[in-house]
Amino acid sequence: MMKAYLTRGYRFSSSHRLHNESFGEEKNREIYGKCNNPHGHGHNYALEVTVSGPVAVDTGMVCDLGDLDGCVAEQVLARFDHQNLNVRSEFADLVPTTENLAVVVFDILRREFTAAHLEQVRIEETANNSFTYAGGAEPILQ
Amino acid sequence: MMKAYLTRGYRFSSSHRLHNESFGEEKNREIYGKCNNPHGHGHNYALEVTVSGPVAVDTGMVCDLGDLDGCVAEQVLARFDHQNLNVRSEFADLVPTTENLAVVVFDILRREFTAAHLEQVRIEETANNSFTYAGGAEPILQ
Amino acid sequence: MMKAYLTRGYRFSSSHRLHNESFGEEKNREIYGKCNNPHGHGHNYALEVTVSGPVAVDTGMVCDLGDLDGCVAEQVLARFDHQNLNVRSEFADLVPTTENLAVVVFDILRREFTAAHLEQVRIEETANNSFTYAGGAEPILQ
Amino acid sequence: MMKAYLTRGYRFSSSHRLHNESFGEEKNREIYGKCNNPHGHGHNYALEVTVSGPVAVDTGMVCDLGDLDGCVAEQVLARFDHQNLNVRSEFADLVPTTENLAVVVFDILRREFTAAHLEQVRIEETANNSFTYAGGAEPILQ
Amino acid sequence: MMKAYLTRGYRFSSSHRLHNESFGEEKNREIYGKCNNPHGHGHNYALEVTVSGPVAVDTGMVCDLGDLDGCVAEQVLARFDHQNLNVRSEFADLVPTTENLAVVVFDILRREFTAAHLEQVRIEETANNSFTYAGGAEPILQ
Amino acid sequence: MMKAYLTRGYRFSSSHRLHNESFGEEKNREIYGKCNNPHGHGHNYALEVTVSGPVAVDTGMVCDLGDLDGCVAEQVLARFDHQNLNVRSEFADLVPTTENLAVVVFDILRREFTAAHLEQVRIEETANNSFTYAGGAEPILQ
Repeated sequence: MMKAYLTRGYRFSSSHRLHNESFGEEKNREIYGKCNNPHGHGHNYALEVTVSGPVAVDTGMVCDLGDLDGCVAEQVLARFDHQNLNVRSEFADLVPTTENLAVVVFDILRREFTAAHLEQVRIEETANNSFTYAGGAEPILQ
Repeated sequence: MMKAYLTRGYRFSSSHRLHNESFGEEKNREIYGKCNNPHGHGHNYALEVTVSGPVAVDTGMVCDLGDLDGCVAEQVLARFDHQNLNVRSEFADLVPTTENLAVVVFDILRREFTAAHLEQVRIEETANNSFTYAGGAEPILQ
Repeated sequence: MMKAYLTRGYRFSSSHRLHNESFGEEKNREIYGKCNNPHGHGHNYALEVTVSGPVAVDTGMVCDLGDLDGCVAEQVLARFDHQNLNVRSEFADLVPTTENLAVVVFDILRREFTAAHLEQVRIEETANNSFTYAGGAEPILQ
Repeated sequence: MMKAYLTRGYRFSSSHRLHNESFGEEKNREIYGKCNNPHGHGHNYALEVTVSGPVAVDTGMVCDLGDLDGCVAEQVLARFDHQNLNVRSEFADLVPTTENLAVVVFDILRREFTAAHLEQVRIEETANNSFTYAGGAEPILQ
Repeated sequence: MMKAYLTRGYRFSSSHRLHNESFGEEKNREIYGKCNNPHGHGHNYALEVTVSGPVAVDTGMVCDLGDLDGCVAEQVLARFDHQNLNVRSEFADLVPTTENLAVVVFDILRREFTAAHLEQVRIEETANNSFTYAGGAEPILQ
Repeated sequence: MMKAYLTRGYRFSSSHRLHNESFGEEKNREIYGKCNNPHGHGHNYALEVTVSGPVAVDTGMVCDLGDLDGCVAEQVLARFDHQNLNVRSEFADLVPTTENLAVVVFDILRREFTAAHLEQVRIEETANNSFTYAGGAEPILQ
């Protein structure tokens, strides 16, 4: 059995404000700096989803890319693309940092995508920053 | 006299909502689609500023990069980075499309940067989209 | 009137063989080298379409991106994506070099896209190669 | 002993058709979609080879890059660059998906490159897709 | 506890010459080739630092990016940016290959950065080459 | 006659020190800052050469890429790759800024490459900086 890893990229554009109601104003500014600006700001997020599985002997594939694309479009992009993360129910009790966004996306895909094993999600917030979450396990590749 | 062109890149992250108060709700949705979402969304904008001038015989330079960086930091990044474009005075009467953002940035730099000739600004909104404005003249290079 | 330029990127994957029936075998190999391999090879082409026009005062846009995307999808991607260029009617009498592909795409878009002025098309064949065609005029920007 | 990992990138352009003779026409179209087009299509493949080993105390190197480049040029690029994968003997009984291509390249390099330990190969098929194979072991880095 | 991984990118430009005094001239040329040129050459190094830790429940962050940026600026960029690596004390007894540079940077950051767990450093020497060092452990992600 | 533009990319790695003997030490530091460090530093330069010409009716090409590659390899890369620019004869009386490097490369290619019309050269010094020279004419595309 040859186990291979498939990484597929997606993009979405969202706005957010980093702010925790339970901190005072001063502490919010201290922790989040310019990301605490009350009117928000935004990013082009680049999402990389890595799944794994045996390479099927007959098809030569780990899984159908169309299935993965459909699941990500419906479960991730439809929720977050061209949205303000702060008003989404997923972030009702969670500061929409990219760390938390990676956890939220991973948990959605673990539940919704079953055609191959979800290994990890990586989200680039800017050209210089990315965050990886592997569900508590160690990430195994980008 | 050898005239050369210098293109320098900058990045900023902002949110915006595309909406024209003078259109009704339906027309706004028709024209701007998901970009009309009332809570806004955002982007990592990549700005490229092109200036030109003779290559000085003694220094070998078109201009001091530090001067350009200082001007862009103070006049552009300080205004728009980690901000919501819709609440900025520059967009009080202007829909914050990237076309208009390019015009606004060009006009600021034409006024504020005088150490070399401003040729054009190009702003990438996403990996697939960019907008160029050359002050009414034809752009001459990316 | 503020004239701005919009550049939009698209991608398609095709195969081709560089071969001119009117040359002999030896001359074909001499001119096209490994690109003359009879079984063909292929590329991920990155297409950049540049259009221009006045920034509309009310919408703040040069044109509706959806219109451009729809036209390119229907008139360019549907013809060439995941196809062998040599068997397409557009290349019945034309060697499918990327120079000729740029000319063909430009001519299609000049005829089919009328919502803004088509300035030029640029096609990257590999990470190191690109070809630009501006309809006989000088290209004005990447 | 300081063990380091070296990742080196290469590029090649090939065509392929995804098709399994043992499936009927309908099933081939269902599984492979537009990739089943009988005339084929193609890609610019970006190959990343990761090898590891102790950093030699005297040379400060994991291995001679020239050795790796020579092996990849002779054993991988000479086989697949500017070729149609379907007519290659390596794919006589194997659908030339990028999963299988990664396995084939890994197996060739494991056999042919002995100057450092081969960790994994990663092949980008398009800007949005990559496949990693680590010989059955878990991949350890991109 | 949700453990996430943060990768942050930095850039610096340095020159170096690969040369080991204990080898003779001929052996230096044989091992290092054009990198042994006595006047040196240089690179734009792209450094990626990966740290990990639990996502804090209140802040939603692994660590303060400003802390990491400050530490890298003071401890890495101030030492190596716009410098000749060969005249730096860190390379007094070490050939300044990128393997050794990765080890040196890792050791500095392991000692100096304590706000999260340092996982690995990856340094791109050119667009086609990168080197990863994880302190003797296996690297876990790019 | 269909005139097309071909842009081809090359890379080379060099070191340099920005310093003009006729300035005093203080003025050199003031003008060139950290680039005046006496031991030098370096860059991976990305060179883009743009040539133009009619698309030949029989070959479908502007010129033979192999001719351009051969000329650039022999006349540009052989001079500057893995070299210290300051010790090169081309910079005996010229500060090796990237502006001047662009002029020098343009002048070499204008003289040496005759198979198509040289339009311009663009050199990226870092990910954020590029310089374009078109021989005194206006550049026409990137």
